Amino acid sequence: MLRRLLLLHVPRRHFSSSFSSALPLSSPTFAVFGANTGVGKTLVSAGLAASLLRSHGASPSGVLYLKPLQTGFPADSDAEFLFRMVPSLLRASHAAHLAASLDILSASPSVEILPPLPEEAAFSYDGEGEVVRKQLSCRTLYAWREAVSPHLAAEREGMVVEDAHVRSRLAACLVEGENLGKGDGEGEVWKLVETAGGVASPGPSGTLQCDLYRAFRLPTILVGDGRLGGISSTLSAYETLLLRGYDVSAVILEDRGLSNDKFLLSYLRNRVPVLVLPPIPEDPSDDLTDWFCESSSVFGLLKDALQSFHSTRIQRLISMQRKSKDLLWWPFTQHNLVHVDSVTVIDSRCGESFSAYKVKDNKMTMTPQFDACASWWTQGPDSNLQIELARDMGYAAARYGHVMFPENAHEPALRCAELLLGGVGKDWASRVHYSDNGSTAIEIALKMAFRKFSLDHGILVDSGKSITNERNIQLKVLALEGSYHGDTLGAMEAQAPSAYTSFLQHPWYSGRGLFLNPPTVFIRNETCTLSLPPWIQHGHLSPGDKCFPSLAEVFCKTRDSSSAADLYSTYISQQLSKYSLSSNREHIAALIIEPVIQGAGGMHMIDPLFQRVLVQECRNRKIPVIFDEVFTGFWRLGVESTSELLGCLPDIACYAKLMTGGIVPLAATITTEAVFEAFKSDSKLTALLHGHSYTAHAMGCSAAVKAIQWFRDPSKNSNLDFDQMKLNEMWDGTLVNQLSSLPNVKRVVSLGTLCAIELKAEGSDAGYASLCARSLIQLLHEEDDIYARPLGNVIYLMCGPCTAKDICTEQLSKVYRRISSFNPVH
Amino acid sequence: MLRRLLLLHVPRRHFSSSFSSALPLSSPTFAVFGANTGVGKTLVSAGLAASLLRSHGASPSGVLYLKPLQTGFPADSDAEFLFRMVPSLLRASHAAHLAASLDILSASPSVEILPPLPEEAAFSYDGEGEVVRKQLSCRTLYAWREAVSPHLAAEREGMVVEDAHVRSRLAACLVEGENLGKGDGEGEVWKLVETAGGVASPGPSGTLQCDLYRAFRLPTILVGDGRLGGISSTLSAYETLLLRGYDVSAVILEDRGLSNDKFLLSYLRNRVPVLVLPPIPEDPSDDLTDWFCESSSVFGLLKDALQSFHSTRIQRLISMQRKSKDLLWWPFTQHNLVHVDSVTVIDSRCGESFSAYKVKDNKMTMTPQFDACASWWTQGPDSNLQIELARDMGYAAARYGHVMFPENAHEPALRCAELLLGGVGKDWASRVHYSDNGSTAIEIALKMAFRKFSLDHGILVDSGKSITNERNIQLKVLALEGSYHGDTLGAMEAQAPSAYTSFLQHPWYSGRGLFLNPPTVFIRNETCTLSLPPWIQHGHLSPGDKCFPSLAEVFCKTRDSSSAADLYSTYISQQLSKYSLSSNREHIAALIIEPVIQGAGGMHMIDPLFQRVLVQECRNRKIPVIFDEVFTGFWRLGVESTSELLGCLPDIACYAKLMTGGIVPLAATITTEAVFEAFKSDSKLTALLHGHSYTAHAMGCSAAVKAIQWFRDPSKNSNLDFDQMKLNEMWDGTLVNQLSSLPNVKRVVSLGTLCAIELKAEGSDAGYASLCARSLIQLLHEEDDIYARPLGNVIYLMCGPCTAKDICTEQLSKVYRRISSFNPVH
Repeated sequence: MLRRLLLLHVPRRHFSSSFSSALPLSSPTFAVFGANTGVGKTLVSAGLAASLLRSHGASPSGVLYLKPLQTGFPADSDAEFLFRMVPSLLRASHAAHLAASLDILSASPSVEILPPLPEEAAFSYDGEGEVVRKQLSCRTLYAWREAVSPHLAAEREGMVVEDAHVRSRLAACLVEGENLGKGDGEGEVWKLVETAGGVASPGPSGTLQCDLYRAFRLPTILVGDGRLGGISSTLSAYETLLLRGYDVSAVILEDRGLSNDKFLLSYLRNRVPVLVLPPIPEDPSDDLTDWFCESSSVFGLLKDALQSFHSTRIQRLISMQRKSKDLLWWPFTQHNLVHVDSVTVIDSRCGESFSAYKVKDNKMTMTPQFDACASWWTQGPDSNLQIELARDMGYAAARYGHVMFPENAHEPALRCAELLLGGVGKDWASRVHYSDNGSTAIEIALKMAFRKFSLDHGILVDSGKSITNERNIQLKVLALEGSYHGDTLGAMEAQAPSAYTSFLQHPWYSGRGLFLNPPTVFIRNETCTLSLPPWIQHGHLSPGDKCFPSLAEVFCKTRDSSSAADLYSTYISQQLSKYSLSSNREHIAALIIEPVIQGAGGMHMIDPLFQRVLVQECRNRKIPVIFDEVFTGFWRLGVESTSELLGCLPDIACYAKLMTGGIVPLAATITTEAVFEAFKSDSKLTALLHGHSYTAHAMGCSAAVKAIQWFRDPSKNSNLDFDQMKLNEMWDGTLVNQLSSLPNVKRVVSLGTLCAIELKAEGSDAGYASLCARSLIQLLHEEDDIYARPLGNVIYLMCGPCTAKDICTEQLSKVYRRISSFNPVH
Repeated sequence: MLRRLLLLHVPRRHFSSSFSSALPLSSPTFAVFGANTGVGKTLVSAGLAASLLRSHGASPSGVLYLKPLQTGFPADSDAEFLFRMVPSLLRASHAAHLAASLDILSASPSVEILPPLPEEAAFSYDGEGEVVRKQLSCRTLYAWREAVSPHLAAEREGMVVEDAHVRSRLAACLVEGENLGKGDGEGEVWKLVETAGGVASPGPSGTLQCDLYRAFRLPTILVGDGRLGGISSTLSAYETLLLRGYDVSAVILEDRGLSNDKFLLSYLRNRVPVLVLPPIPEDPSDDLTDWFCESSSVFGLLKDALQSFHSTRIQRLISMQRKSKDLLWWPFTQHNLVHVDSVTVIDSRCGESFSAYKVKDNKMTMTPQFDACASWWTQGPDSNLQIELARDMGYAAARYGHVMFPENAHEPALRCAELLLGGVGKDWASRVHYSDNGSTAIEIALKMAFRKFSLDHGILVDSGKSITNERNIQLKVLALEGSYHGDTLGAMEAQAPSAYTSFLQHPWYSGRGLFLNPPTVFIRNETCTLSLPPWIQHGHLSPGDKCFPSLAEVFCKTRDSSSAADLYSTYISQQLSKYSLSSNREHIAALIIEPVIQGAGGMHMIDPLFQRVLVQECRNRKIPVIFDEVFTGFWRLGVESTSELLGCLPDIACYAKLMTGGIVPLAATITTEAVFEAFKSDSKLTALLHGHSYTAHAMGCSAAVKAIQWFRDPSKNSNLDFDQMKLNEMWDGTLVNQLSSLPNVKRVVSLGTLCAIELKAEGSDAGYASLCARSLIQLLHEEDDIYARPLGNVIYLMCGPCTAKDICTEQLSKVYRRISSFNPVH
């Protein structure tokens, strides 16, 4: 028997909750969690390992047992127990020979430092005329002396190990272990990862073990508790695992004469198989051989249940690409252009990364991929917030289910409203109107603005009771070219004509607005540059008005007295006058803009001075101002509300996406009391008759409450500059500048959680229809494990407000390397 | 000392998960749950009771300790322990006199039967010069002999008690206990309800205790576990409580030298106070007086923490009406007409009932109210399904958070699609397009229909690549008067003009349709009657065509050959011909109907024969048919899809509301492959460019998967007639007939989960603006604990597909009594 005691020195740095390696999927891998400490996890592991190695045929070719965290070491060593027990069980039941290896990678400070040599000896199984070689490898990754919880042992012995360290070590072992015993055949290698204590016992850093291992999301064997109270602790442990997104593949527990198994079997029917083991001898001198012998049929059943779980899972994963392509209708997707192999099967997400099912070099893997789309601009949570939100979602569903909203009050809706009005609505808004998504929030905002405008301008009088010539009146919006406000007809009508609005897309679209072409700002060749639309005479602006040392100068309020401000003001006034002269039936009844960044239009940064002047001109004319903050709100651009960047306030603002932290749809249209008053009268007919069934649903509001508080809490969000209430730079300035200087890059926009890069493209290759960026995206996807989606010629990286800067830098470096070496195939 | 052993005999019948009595709120009431068995719940209860009774001043005037379930009785009796221990602790610490009562209401078969006489003796406290009388009452509600889990004891001793029985007994005790010691003063009565075993230990019927007591949702003291593994079991128990919607007000645990409290304190910081007790003496001969003495400061802190929790909660409840009225903007609500006192503060829901904060006779209560609006037509869950959904929501959030959808696959979206296509889409649909709510689903359906029509009729050719004169073409819908399809502009345009669509509501509405006035069906004077619109000559129909013995005949396919069918067909043809002659630019490009019942339009049942003929006429003309099943789908009308009732299929159907079981917004537009094909080409521009950020969000899809399966599973849904795949009659036929014969009732529509009653109203009192039903609704709300909302003159009761018929009958009886005795004040 070999014993290696290893101390690993890894430099301290920030790791993501994920790990970079793809985990093999072809062989079954299970985590062994316990409902409590002392319920027999190690006995279950041993019995299962023996059952596996005893099986006929080539599969499995080996069993890898991993004990990541061992306390009470060396007196207690579960790996050693298995290593000693399993061969003896096999010898007892068959004529067999086993030699196996035992590695211990320990955090204990006193032990000898050796390189980690995995060394597994073969085990020949000679049963029923055939000789099969199998291997068992048992490894401890970290060990501490004291027999207490790892967090306490680590603290007391001064040997704390970082979570990321544990995860990457475990991942490496799982990848390595794939080849165990493969010299002699092609069988599976079963891998068992036995945790320490109960499901929520802390690991060495204090992170609960169910959280520590979450990024792996291994299918789980839950060892239940057969004692008095054991039903409760088993079910609670089961729920704790579910609240981390684990799949429990089997529950197995000792019979202590209380029939806990019968109750659990009935409770978990059609969900999880429940198996019961004979009572474990309490006499410490018992070598347990008889018990294992008596239990072998149960372990056989466990093995079968796990095998079946594994095959079902794999078969489903394999079939999902085809089935999805056959049954689903993806939005914004030309199905003819999606090859079945290119469908991404997302098994789960953990913080900023997906776990995607992927076949690499003919091998099935579960691969972490950075979600550069921030799941289509909604994301928020790092792995900590995700688990917090999951717990809150369960609680909200259990407490409220759904309760209808009109004339009612419930805590999540009220609390969320308080946070909105004290945050993004501070100093101007006093009312919150909830709806379901950005598009509905915009439709509501337009209805609000039109009513307010109609009353202010005498189109409606006396709270709508008396209306004159209403059908001769046409209300329009003032908006910007390239704007996008959603996909329902009302929101579409407020945006300029584009590929989204053709007859093909909606025969009812007419474009009810005056759409201005705005100046934009971007970084090119390391310089912050103003790009002017054709209507501006370049000569009128000084170089200082067109180039800026940094973005801070672009946002600077001193520009209000620049020649650019005059130019903008004059132009806007002219346009509005021209419009009102051309028709006396048509009125500009609302201004609607996406402040600072136009998202879907191509990640264009609009000159904030232009937007500020626009707001002022509308205010002068009593035209209500709507900020569409659906994309830009809640720290997307580094501040909670982009009003702070623009330096001016709206009458109505719309929020969605990031508002719930990126977990569930919910939207809010917030507004001033003056707008609210426009709907008040003694008649129900003047009320705003717009509402959806799930308005202010409890789960959405609860998520928003958690997310809004989390993002602005410096103890949770380490990116936050609390004094300035803005996020520190997420995207490395040097890298951004380098990117902006690449010959195939047209412009870069980097602000808050967004870094967008427009590639150069010629002629018909430009615009939404373009597939230019597609091959680059494909390389990022396949080679760099970055899940991105092109927006015409624009590719972008988007993170959450709490994403560690290291993660951003890592992804941006990959993108830089990829673009700088990229030759698009035309 | 008194001991009463009582056996209660209550006839077996179905009880709802709720209970009918309002719980008093003014005095603090807490549940004591344990992280495991044997963690010291009873010691905590005793220490807390002593600490409360020891306090100076008039408050509390008494402490009521309830032990609903006691096993191991009479040797083990927690109530007796408290009764014995608390006075002795008070005597030890002060010059005090206590006489208290001990009641035991037992399910034990051998004990004497006596009426439950609550008998509490006074206790005079004489400290610091003042004499205060206080009372302690300790009661056991049910007891079994064997010291095992209640479910096992109940089974073994043949004494199972139903959950509803336990709940109503407990509720009665809590209400009664409010007056404890009040003879002498006005102080609070603290009530402690100590559970048995761990949080998820089964009660006598097998229901987990956390579920058994859920309807009360008492604030909870969690007694944690100080032993090895106790961090895990404490946190898991905490999460199990959260997953039932409980608020944990404090965690308290024994110090066993492992610093579990320190870890928990840090983990639960800013959420729950964590308190630690000195080690409990293990010597059974220790009378614990010293330990209690040593612990008294901790119990003092616990008391303070609970007091603070209670006051904060009550203050918040009191303030919520005002704050909600000041900050929220309710949809469909004229805020001027909402008095602050009439705002309903909903503290939680449990199955079909809200728990509403209500002041009754100057006393604050938490009152269960039947949610007759089925939370605005979304509801589904009984209390079992609600908890299942809560667990699934937590799991989905933890596993997926949100993952973007285009070109991706994830299990909940795929599984939900499979269930939709195998269920409501069976035999016709092959594609699922997800969105966020009914309104967006309709907008998508219209886009689908218009494209399909345009290709089929040569308006677009070659998958949209070549388009001729598109802006001269006007596409319209064929729809019915009284229809309602949602609040976004596209959905509004597809419905007939109404109060919802005025210039006041949306200046952009023009009503892009041909709207027909349909025949309707209702019950009046116990007869199922066809009501004809003016365009039909009554003389053309025989009496058998106009009156039906029951609804079954209305749906009967043999009517296809009736004279009514001919009449309908001729009329529809005429209308369509007239329309196409009047314009060659306008085309009827889609039929859109709410099958069988028009919901928002006033709960009108459209003659299904008329709708069937309509579909056939459109099919003959290659006009795509859209079924808006947002309200009617998923068993709302007793069948999974109303296609089954109508006897014909659509090309496109929209689902939302009940699809997720009524927990979170999600919608689906499902359609045929032929419609899907109309969007395929080699260009992204012909794809359906409509999608919301949270499209196919994992929580929504997971909820839908659970709900769809649950509703159609006879082992979960006892209302299901599995052979016919329809729900049994929910609303008592006799009561419905009686209602239909009341002089002030105009019509009744009763189908599936819906029972709608239109009241008679005259002249301007009719229609949406009407406030006629309002006073009736108010009486139902205040006197009958039915939460209803009027729809013009229509009041309705709506339940979920699994709601027990008893509950329906109870509510309908109340409504019948109320209407039959109602005199509206004009």
